[in-house]
Amino acid sequence: MKKKTVEDLVLEVKDKSELMVDLAYSSLIYDNMTIAEEVYDLEDLIDELYQDIQKKTLQHIEKKELSVNDALTVLRLAELGERISDAAQEIADVVLRDVELHPIIKMSIRESDQVFTSINVDEKSILAGKTLGELKLGSETGMYIRAMRHENKWLYGPDKNTKIDAGDILFAKGPEDGEKHLIDLATGKSKDI
Amino acid sequence: MKKKTVEDLVLEVKDKSELMVDLAYSSLIYDNMTIAEEVYDLEDLIDELYQDIQKKTLQHIEKKELSVNDALTVLRLAELGERISDAAQEIADVVLRDVELHPIIKMSIRESDQVFTSINVDEKSILAGKTLGELKLGSETGMYIRAMRHENKWLYGPDKNTKIDAGDILFAKGPEDGEKHLIDLATGKSKDI
Repeated sequence: MKKKTVEDLVLEVKDKSELMVDLAYSSLIYDNMTIAEEVYDLEDLIDELYQDIQKKTLQHIEKKELSVNDALTVLRLAELGERISDAAQEIADVVLRDVELHPIIKMSIRESDQVFTSINVDEKSILAGKTLGELKLGSETGMYIRAMRHENKWLYGPDKNTKIDAGDILFAKGPEDGEKHLIDLATGKSKDI
Repeated sequence: MKKKTVEDLVLEVKDKSELMVDLAYSSLIYDNMTIAEEVYDLEDLIDELYQDIQKKTLQHIEKKELSVNDALTVLRLAELGERISDAAQEIADVVLRDVELHPIIKMSIRESDQVFTSINVDEKSILAGKTLGELKLGSETGMYIRAMRHENKWLYGPDKNTKIDAGDILFAKGPEDGEKHLIDLATGKSKDI
């Protein structure tokens, strides 16, 4: 495994904290404790990343590989990503404390301009056995795969080489008409990508 | 104009705070002071929304239209949205303080799994004169229009009835291959939506 640079880590904090906000609101709308717990696990990961960034940044200053001003910016960005992830965790906390959301509030959040949905991949689906790079779901359906569940393991921020298998659960975000398209593809109802 | 309910306001805080995070990182990557300033303006709007939610929620309790538990959840969600928007504002602040981001950090953030891009609409473009509802850009290109600039005015969270005109600037988010498709449509290079 390639050693991660401090830049890789800042990017990871940014991406993961944005994903956490998505997952947190999603767990709230769908009363989904599993997703809420995943937000908690991600927060632990972000804390680790943050500490790692702090240590590496200071080491870079010591070795004069990074100026003090650049280092301050890196530390600031990492801290802000960490604060966003804290807020996301507290949103998930509403779910984990088993607070039943008022139906009207739930409906209202669901009416957001983008939907967040979880979809099971059927063995008849043309998605099964293909990589995300082959499928180009983002540009074809408008739905963007934010996370996947594969053999009881979570995968966040899947990339072009990630393969979808039958039985996987896709967590996708996008416009409402894209959701229907993706559901039809995942259930095998449509082969027309 | 329809009077906004407390649920509408919570949804607005959620959507605007997520948009602010997008815009803030975008202003950072593209060194764009205009976008950074818009993040500041949005923060003022969120503050107003937050105060409005607090007042309306307490009034609902007084009139026994909302239970204390539901009210606490509403206040909590609004507060967390507000905290996310605060963090976004501080990210934009890095840009406004004119901190030059280290090129490697900038490249790294740009390599994120989704791109955020600003695109001018040419008069030859097939997008000009059509509504977002007619175009279905989200499902056709994977690019989601987060904000638009029209005749020196900003429009956040455009909806199905929003019309694109030649000269508008679109702020869109999505996968990298979707960006090229949308640029080709906006410049008039491609008519194939």
